[in-house]
Formats: sequence, structure tokens, C-alpha cells
Amino acid sequence: MFHVKHPDFIDVIVIGAGHAGCEAAWAAANRGATVRLITQNLDTIAKMSCNPAIGGIGKGHLVHEVDALGGLMGVAADQSALQYRVLNRRKGPAVRATRTQCDRRLYHIYMRSMLDGHPRIHLHQGSVSELMFDGDRVVGVVDELGVKHECSSVVLTTGTFLGGVIHVGDRSMPAGRAGDAPVMGLTDELYRRELKVGRLKTGTPPRLDKKTIAWDQLPMQPGETDVQPFSLMHDHVKQEQIPCAITRTTERTHEIILENLSRSPMYSGKIEGVGPRYCPSIEDKVVRFADKSSHQIFLEPEGGDHNEVYPNGISTSLPIDVQWAFVRSIPGLEKVNLIRPGYAVEYDYISPQELTSSLETKKIKALFHAGQINGTTGYEEAAAQGLIAGINAASAALELPHWVPDRSQAYMGVMIDDLVTKGVTEPYRMFTSRAEFRLQLREDNADLRLGNHAIELGLYSELRRQRFEARRDRVGEVFASAGAMQIGTGAEWRSRLAELRLPVPTQSMLFSSYCHREDVNVDQAVGLLDGAGALNVRDLESIKALLHYSGYIDKQHQDVDRFKKMEAQIIPETIDYSRIAGISIECSQRLQSARPATLGQASRLSGVTPAALTGLMMHLRTLS
Amino acid sequence: MFHVKHPDFIDVIVIGAGHAGCEAAWAAANRGATVRLITQNLDTIAKMSCNPAIGGIGKGHLVHEVDALGGLMGVAADQSALQYRVLNRRKGPAVRATRTQCDRRLYHIYMRSMLDGHPRIHLHQGSVSELMFDGDRVVGVVDELGVKHECSSVVLTTGTFLGGVIHVGDRSMPAGRAGDAPVMGLTDELYRRELKVGRLKTGTPPRLDKKTIAWDQLPMQPGETDVQPFSLMHDHVKQEQIPCAITRTTERTHEIILENLSRSPMYSGKIEGVGPRYCPSIEDKVVRFADKSSHQIFLEPEGGDHNEVYPNGISTSLPIDVQWAFVRSIPGLEKVNLIRPGYAVEYDYISPQELTSSLETKKIKALFHAGQINGTTGYEEAAAQGLIAGINAASAALELPHWVPDRSQAYMGVMIDDLVTKGVTEPYRMFTSRAEFRLQLREDNADLRLGNHAIELGLYSELRRQRFEARRDRVGEVFASAGAMQIGTGAEWRSRLAELRLPVPTQSMLFSSYCHREDVNVDQAVGLLDGAGALNVRDLESIKALLHYSGYIDKQHQDVDRFKKMEAQIIPETIDYSRIAGISIECSQRLQSARPATLGQASRLSGVTPAALTGLMMHLRTLS
Ligand SMILES: Cc1cc2nc3c(=O)[nH]c(=O)nc-3n(C[C@H](O)[C@H](O)[C@H](O)COP(=O)(O)OP(=O)(O)OC[C@H]3O[C@@H](n4cnc5c(N)ncnc54)[C@H](O)[C@@H]3O)c2cc1C
Ligand SMILES: Cc1cc2nc3c(=O)[nH]c(=O)nc-3n(C[C@H](O)[C@H](O)[C@H](O)COP(=O)(O)OP(=O)(O)OC[C@H]3O[C@@H](n4cnc5c(N)ncnc54)[C@H](O)[C@@H]3O)c2cc1C
Repeated sequence: MFHVKHPDFIDVIVIGAGHAGCEAAWAAANRGATVRLITQNLDTIAKMSCNPAIGGIGKGHLVHEVDALGGLMGVAADQSALQYRVLNRRKGPAVRATRTQCDRRLYHIYMRSMLDGHPRIHLHQGSVSELMFDGDRVVGVVDELGVKHECSSVVLTTGTFLGGVIHVGDRSMPAGRAGDAPVMGLTDELYRRELKVGRLKTGTPPRLDKKTIAWDQLPMQPGETDVQPFSLMHDHVKQEQIPCAITRTTERTHEIILENLSRSPMYSGKIEGVGPRYCPSIEDKVVRFADKSSHQIFLEPEGGDHNEVYPNGISTSLPIDVQWAFVRSIPGLEKVNLIRPGYAVEYDYISPQELTSSLETKKIKALFHAGQINGTTGYEEAAAQGLIAGINAASAALELPHWVPDRSQAYMGVMIDDLVTKGVTEPYRMFTSRAEFRLQLREDNADLRLGNHAIELGLYSELRRQRFEARRDRVGEVFASAGAMQIGTGAEWRSRLAELRLPVPTQSMLFSSYCHREDVNVDQAVGLLDGAGALNVRDLESIKALLHYSGYIDKQHQDVDRFKKMEAQIIPETIDYSRIAGISIECSQRLQSARPATLGQASRLSGVTPAALTGLMMHLRTLS
Repeated sequence: MFHVKHPDFIDVIVIGAGHAGCEAAWAAANRGATVRLITQNLDTIAKMSCNPAIGGIGKGHLVHEVDALGGLMGVAADQSALQYRVLNRRKGPAVRATRTQCDRRLYHIYMRSMLDGHPRIHLHQGSVSELMFDGDRVVGVVDELGVKHECSSVVLTTGTFLGGVIHVGDRSMPAGRAGDAPVMGLTDELYRRELKVGRLKTGTPPRLDKKTIAWDQLPMQPGETDVQPFSLMHDHVKQEQIPCAITRTTERTHEIILENLSRSPMYSGKIEGVGPRYCPSIEDKVVRFADKSSHQIFLEPEGGDHNEVYPNGISTSLPIDVQWAFVRSIPGLEKVNLIRPGYAVEYDYISPQELTSSLETKKIKALFHAGQINGTTGYEEAAAQGLIAGINAASAALELPHWVPDRSQAYMGVMIDDLVTKGVTEPYRMFTSRAEFRLQLREDNADLRLGNHAIELGLYSELRRQRFEARRDRVGEVFASAGAMQIGTGAEWRSRLAELRLPVPTQSMLFSSYCHREDVNVDQAVGLLDGAGALNVRDLESIKALLHYSGYIDKQHQDVDRFKKMEAQIIPETIDYSRIAGISIECSQRLQSARPATLGQASRLSGVTPAALTGLMMHLRTLS
């Protein structure tokens, strides 16, 4: 067979236009590179394989950060939202999170049209089957038509497609996702280059036909209207909110599942890959929580222009006849039609310990990995990694500095550091509990944390830059004035406070302390600040969160400083741990295999003792 | 592996939701059957594999007929139209034809939502891999998950998917269409049942990225605004018309193609299947019309919300590097990016001579075939067959009478008769020249020809029935008054004619003869008719066409009568041609293998002599 060359050299090639690939292409192009985005099927760009919902706890934070770095996900989610909700609304602002139910098709349409519109992004339908090397450096890719595409760097975002196999009961077939072909061959190549390969799995519920559900028998959950959109580019939620219905599994449901457990590929041993612990299948839930006689199910719309309904909570790979039987045992679904079967997919991932924190593989120069291929699960995790990989792949191509946020700057930083330092043994998803500096890693301040970096990296459009700078300055000024302000007890204060129906303190006090008083309504109190009139809802949220955490955040700043110092202590790549005094053999082997890039990373490895850390620190000092 | 049963029995199963399958499901459900539409991927329902254009000469007639029988294609085409054109505008109304360029995605969306909305249609994602039989009768299907679906009748509409292989240069891979898996196994089963299987091919051009085309250097062709929408349900074209651009191949283009001809799978002998003669690839055109130094290309939009452009006129399966080179040699495309490659697809078809005219296979009871599987090409041909197969599959399931229009009633009748009588040796497409009674088979009167049948068959919604009956009666009454009317020469006539700027005849004459006068503007003259004020544009077109052909049509009626008589002479299935006097051995073999159902069909077989026909007719008379 002939091999032919693509006529145009390109800076960056992104393989796969899933959630990671789209952000990678966009960020790389914004950074200044020309990008070819090669994907199996242009009609499945940014397709949500499972539930068309974006955000949620921890994940909503990632979406805000992607947006703060000029990414696409927040914009597309806003444009295609069917329903918004705020999770943890009654808890502190740091763990509050936004989630939207989206129209799957509209999401794809918006993503595609943004990519189409970028002058430096070129879409290309094709399937990459080989990488091209020059020594230990990737220099291009080869597609299934035998075309050689030459480039400076490559971002690999294969999702669930590498060696993908789907399972329904005792049936299994090669596929990256129902309806899409798997990708074979690439894994072997990476394996030959001694990259550590593993196997994971995930699953999805059957889809239901709207017209066969007894909606009138089910309670409905409306959307929330007082919600801020994800993107800084949007001021208000525009769409009408579509409600979800709620139902529950019954004892009969659980009986049917238990009776047929041996026919589940998970329990019969057909599936080897480990699944996401926090997104269990219904058979998992029935077994693991045997004492519960019922599990809640949300019936969520998947789009405005067709009849598919997503039953959230009953992901399954049981045989199809068992799916029918157990689904029809659920109230409201007695006569339902399943229009797509539920299934599980098993796929290859490459250990993220093979990566530097800029998501470049250590063994192959200029090759970046992002998304599900790194052992994560979730669209948001994929998007966040894609964005970082895209920035750095462009940087590599254009010889610009790399950039990665650290754990104190962003959830993205936490995730990437977790991945490259500790690797994964099960699909990794984001949680607020993973972030040690979470009080300052909020949804509301993602742009304030990352916007200046984004501008420096060239990731903002002119309009976005203006909007961001105006907001940054507004919030900064108002908050500065808040810091200095004393609430007085004189006549003038009394009347101002009375106007806002606020209590009068017995003695003059700092505004921030005043806001912590139980009898003070902060929503009202912010009205006292200079310039408060110019603030929009998003700005007010940021100010209120700052007030809410004032004090704590200052304390956390000290922890951050200590953290930053540890992170600044780079461990040379050539270090030989076996020769360092005070490090046990076990510890030195752990360090040798994980190869942390900084003292900070070393400190977060399980099995690395305080004694070993001290030894390492002393050793680094002798080097410098 | 387990085989399990779908919990619900269903009247009709339609396999494949392409253009044939959608109409089949819809018509069967309208006829009263419950329908399960099983298709590989719900996201590719009614996908236009090639150019997203509906209609054209002969094909536009089919679309009108589909609409006249309550089908979907005309409605969806109107809803998703980007540009309308009337072809043959200067020729007689019988050969005038409507064509729209559509938004491929919107077309899918409308089709899907109509199917979703039908209470008796159930969509089911799956791939059918086996048929279930009871003796010589099909009683269900088995899908790839091992599920047995039981039913009364089956419509098979596999399009280009049966044993599909796609080719680009020297590369080939199994696929029903780029991005979609082929269907294996089914052909073998039909083959085992002694159905005649053959191989055909078709092709598509590469798709271009809008932002890389030099639009300002190319002449534009605007849409036409004085066009009637396809569907009787729509009164006006609502959308803004999007223009196309025009360019041409150059001598350099032809050089590149000729230099690389040996690398084309068509010329290297890799492809066995026969392609559509009237839709040749660019390599075919360059070879067959060697004297032409240039071919016209239309650059047509494929949708409003993405960047894909369809270059109409350069379908190809040349290697991808040759595609780049020749496309970039075309004015305006010097820097173009190809975002999907052009390719050819080879697939299995089943000889339509295996079918009765209700599209049921003769050898397997209750199994109907429609669309590309019957050796046709084109969405419209597929839709028309699907509709007829759907009606009859439902009729079989519900024990209602079958129905098929004959050659004098519809282009559909012409096509089906051609197919089942003569079979195919190359992909069959519709042309006006195939219809002997074409003066009365016009776009404008499709509903008037078929609407009463549609009502009888239960194919109309209440709203559609009302619209149709009102129009039928309006047109009927006005035309009846036209037949009786004499244009006079008296004072009253003079002033009425003057008002409409029409000439005054020297002696009183029939209105229809008056309209044939060269100096009479028929558009004006119809204003003289009683009730003309109540007519809409579509009605006026019907009236004008009737006037235009008055006389000719009367003559054609006699031919139709003769034709109907021949069609009424049924040939018994048990006939033994070898025993009929006056029929040569050759002729009797021809008749034996084609097994015409009527004397009319026999008369249209090539190789059947007038002498043999007379012999046959005499023989039939002795039988009755
Ligand atoms: C059945 C199923 C259930 C899931 N359930 C959940 C869940 O419950 N919760 C959850 O958080 N996540 C779930 N996920 C995971 C979620 O889909 C992924 O986390 C997310 O899509 C990952 O994004 P990605 O960009 O890494 O990969 P994907 O979205 O999978 O995109 C990969 C893209 O790359 C393309 N591609 C791959 N290889 C090649 C190649 N060689 N050449 C060209 N193109 C290529 C593919 O066509 C695809 O477009 C599920 C996924 C599946 C399939
Ligand atoms: C590359 C290409 C180029 C073409 N070029 C032209 C052209 O230039 N001019 C022209 O007139 N026509 C062209 N066509 C043909 C045109 O696409 C078809 O005529 C038309 O789509 C036929 O409609 P159909 O319903 O018969 O089949 P299709 O539209 O092919 O639909 C078949 C459907 O059945 C499904 N299916 C198949 N088997 C199974 C199964 N076992 N189980 C479940 N589902 C199944 C498929 O997924 C698909 O949805 C081209 C087609 C292709 C692929």
C-alpha cells in the first residue's frame, strides 16, 4: 500500500474530538499554533457518551476554570442548557457547584461551530492508526488511509476508544462507544515504547422513549432560575428550564437484578477493567447497598427535539431482557420502551505516571495525553486536561514556555498533580475534597484566579479580555474598600443600616467581622460598600464568598506559601535515590518509579515517609 | 450465547431508518400497524449519505407523490431547505421539477421528530443480523444482542450497508458509509433462500472547509423564490435562500486525474460493482468525455451551522493525495482543506425481480424489500419504495388489501414496475423519460392523482385530508367551468378581456383553445374563470398545466385505457410458457424467468415479441 504525505505541515495535531480533544485544539490554536484536529467522525464531535449533563460537585469548578482559561465547555454548556441546578446551595460557597442538563445535539453543534470558526483550526475526518517517530520524539501521525501528517507536537485524546469493547450481558463487541468503531493498534505502539497500559471500564443506562412514560404519575423537579451561567461571556440564563421527573427502583427491581446477577459481565468475570467507584451500575448498587430497598432515579431529557430520556441512576450492563424486566418494574415505567440498550465499555488507558505535569509523556517528546486515556472519567476532567495539554503542545511547537497551574491555583492543578504523581487504579474523578486549598478554589473566582495567566498565554479574545479586566478591577476595588471599612455607631450609620434593615453594632467594628455576625444578612450588607451599585450578580457572589471566608483564607495563604516553597524545589531528573542518606530501600524504589518532579510532589506520594522527605530536602540543598 | 425474546410482539418490523425505512415505518403505522423501526444508530436516521439535496428531474415527481401519500420526505425537505430551484422551468409543466439543497442535520432532526411523534412507531437502536422463519414465511428478526423480535411482517431497507466496503485509492475497509459499520451475514441468509444477489457501487466527493475557499473569486448562483414547497402542508417557502458558488475543473485538474488513473480502484479493477451511469465520478467523466477540457462544479452548503461544503460534480475514489492535488487545481480552491475524503462504496443488492409489485419477496412470505437494496440509487427512489413497502407490509400484517399504483397513476408505479419486471444491471434512477404517461404524471397534480387512494388507505391526518379535499374540489370546479366556457366577442367580453390585457378573438371560441393561442398570456387568462379568485399558486399551476395539455391528455387517456386492460389480464402463477402455441423457446425462457404478473408486464419485457404476446393473450382468453 502507498503511504502519502498530507500537503500541509501543521504545528499541532490533536487526535480525537471528544471533550479533551476539542479543548486541546482550541487552546493550542489560541496560544498561536496551527492545529489539525483529526477525529473518526465529524458528526460525533464533543459527543456526550453518557448523561448529557455538565458540572456538578468538583466538576462545576473545572468547567469554570476551563472557561477562565478561554476554553469552550462552559460556553457550549450554557448555550445548550435545558436545566440548571446549584448543588450544595446551603453549604459554603467553596463547595457550591453548578450543574446543567444539556441538549446533547445542541452541545455538539455549538462546539463544532466554535471550532469551525477558528482560523487556525482545521478539522479532518480520519482515524489515526500509527504515530511517526524520530528517535524518542513524535513527529507526526498516520491515518487509516495511509496518509502521513507531519507536525511538531501531538495531543492524544482517545477517550474510551483505545481497544474498546462494549458489553451487554453475555454479548460483547469491539466498539469505542455504541455505534462507533474502536481504535486498534495504537496501544501496542505505546506499549512497545514501554508506556504502562491498563484497562478500565464505564457504563451507561438504557435510554427510554418519552412517549411511553407515565409522566402524570411522577413527581417533577423543576430547574432553578437564580443561577449564574458557567461562562463569563454570559450574564443570564436565557433558556426556559425543562423539569426532570423522579422515580425509584422497587423491591421487585432489586429481585430481578439479583436473580440475574450471574448474567452480568461484571459478575461473570467477563469484564476485567475497574469501573468508576462513584458512578456505580445499578447491579453494583443493589449488591453493595443490600440494605437499601430502593434507589432514586431522575428521568432527564436529553434534548428538545427528540424523545430520548436518560434514566439517571440505573447504568447497567445486564442482558437486554433483564434491562427490560427491571426497568418496567419501576413506577411510571411499566410500559416503557427502551430505545437504546444500556451497556458497559472497557478500554485501554495509559498510566498518567508516564506524564510530566504539562501532560507530555516522559518517554516520547512532544507527545501529550489528555482525557479518559489518562485514567480519568467525566467530560469535565477530560476538558480540563485537554486545555492544559493543548497549551503545552502549542508551547512545545512554538518554543514558548510551558504552563501548568499548581494545586493552590486550580482544581486542574490538583487533578493533574494527583494523576502524574500517584497514577490511578480506578477511574479518577474530581471532588472538592481532593483540594487542600479549596476555600480559595471556588467556582465564583475561577476567572479571578486564572484570568491574568490566560491573557499572558494569549487565550482570550479581545472581548473576553475586556469583560474579564473590568470585572477583576470592579471586584478588586470594592473588596479593597471593604477591607478598610469600619461600621460605625453614629447617627449617619444608624440611618444607613436602618435603611437596609441591618442591625446597629454596639461599638464600631470592621466590616468583615460585622458580616460574620449571625444577625447580619450579608446580601444586604454588601449594599454598604462603595461601588456596590456597579456590581453584577457574579461579582456580588465573589465579594460575599471573600467576606464569608475572610480570616480562613488569610490562614490558608500561609499554607499556600509553604506549599509553593516545596513545589519550587525541583528534583533533578538524574537523581539517584538509592544514594541518599535517610531514605529506606522501599522508599527509594517508590520514588524511583514515580519520579516526582518537585519536593512537593514527592511529599504527596503514598509510602514516602517524613524521614525520607527530610533526607531528600537536605540532599537537594547540597545540590543547589 | 443466550437468545432472549423482546417482550412485545409487533405488527411490522422495519430494518434500517434510511430514506426507505423511515417512509416504510410511517406509512405502515398510518395504515394502522404497530411498527418497530430497528436501526444501527438513532443518530443517523434519514442521513443523506451524499449530497443533501432532495428532488430534481424525475426525483421531484417522486417527492410530490410521497407527499401525496402522506409521506415524510417532502415535509422534511421543506423544513430543512437552504435553497430551492425549479429545473426545466422553460419546458412543459410535466417535466418541470423542484429541487432543494437541504441542511443535512435539520433534515435528520425533522424526520426523527416526526417518527418520535407517531404513537404507533417505536424506535429501537440495534443491528439486525438474522431473520426468523416459519417455513417460507418470515416471522421475526434477531439483532446483534441476540434478541428475537417477533412480528407479522418485515421490511428490509439496508441501503448501502449489506456487505458494504468503502474504497479510497488502494485502501478499502468494511463500512456501510464512512463512519458506519457494514452489515454482514444477512446477505448469506437471503442467498441461501435462493434470492439473486448482486454487487453495485456509488461514490461521493470530498467535503471542503468553507473558511478555506476563496468565495470572492467565484460567481454565485442564488436560489429561486417563486417556488412552491414540496408538501401540500406548506403554502410558502419560508426560509431565506442561501446561494451556491460555481467553479470548474481545469486542464491541470484533468491531467492530475489522468496521471493517477491507475491508482483509482475503479480502473485498477479493485471495484467489481457497477456504478450509477448518470452520476459518474470525476475520473469517469474525464475519461468518457475526453474532449471536454472542463466540467462545472457547484459548491453547495451542507448546513447552516457548520463549515462543510459539498462540491457537486467531483465524486471520486482516487487516493487522498490525488484528491488534494486535483481539488487544489480548481479556481477558488487553491488553498482549500478537505475535511472528509471522497470515497466509493460497494454493497450487495437483491435483484428486484425477486419481488412482486407490492415489493414482497416471492420466495419469502411477509418479507418486503425497499430502497437501495433493490438496486436503485437516490433518496427519493428509496423513499417512494419504502412508502409502498410500508403500506403493503402493514396490509399483510393486518390482513387488509395490498395497494400499488400502476404506471398510469404514478412515477412510483413506473419505477416499481420497471424494477420487478426488468430487474437492474446498473443502479436504477428515476427519469421523466421512463414514464409513458408523463403528461398526466406531473408534480403539480401528484395529490390530485393519489390523494383519494391515500384517504382510503388511512394515510392522511385529519388536517391533511381537509386541505387536500378543499384543494381537490376547488381545482375540480374551476377546471370544470373552464371546460364549458366560451370566450365571446360581444361588448361585455371585450371589456373583460381588455381589463386583463388579453386579445379579443375574431369569433367566439372554447376557453381551452383560446389558451393555446400564442398571443394569450395564460397567467392572465385564468383570471376569467369562475372561482379563480379562491385559487392559490399551487391550484393555478394545476389549472394551467391542465389547459396546457388539454387535447394531448385526452389522447393519452385512450392509451391509459388500453394499458389498464393489459394490466387487468393477470397471468396465473402456475402458467407453463413452454406449452403455449406461438411462443418461441427463447421467449418462453425469458417469460419463465421473469414471471410477469400481468399481460402488461409481459409486454414490457425486452425480448418478448408481439407474436409471443398475441399467443399469450389468446391463451389467457382460453383460461377465463
Ligand atoms: C458508555 C459510557 C458511559 C460513560 N459513563 C460515564 C459516567 O457515568 N460518568 C462519567 O463521568 N463519565 C462517563 N463516561 C465517560 C465520558 O464519556 C468520558 O469521560 C469523556 O467522554 C472523556 O472525554 P475524552 O475526550 O477523553 O474522550 P471521548 O469523549 O471518548 O472522545 C474521544 C474521541 O476521540 C476519537 N478518537 C479516538 N481514537 C481516535 C483515533 N485513533 N483517531 C481519530 N479519532 C479518534 C473518538 O472518535 C472520540 O471522538 C462514559 C463513557 C461511555 C462510553
Ligand atoms: C458514499 C455514497 C454516495 C452516494 N452517492 C449518491 C449519488 O451521488 N446519487 C444518488 O442518487 N445516491 C447516492 N447515494 C445513495 C443514497 O445514499 C441512497 O440511495 C439512499 O440513501 C438509499 O436509501 P435507503 O433507505 O435505501 O438506504 P440508506 O440511506 O443507506 O439507509 C440504510 C439504513 O439502514 C440501516 N441498516 C442497514 N442494515 C441494517 C441492519 N441489519 N440492522 C439495522 N439497521 C440497518 C443503516 O444504518 C441505515 O440507517 C450514495 C450513497 C453513499 C453511501
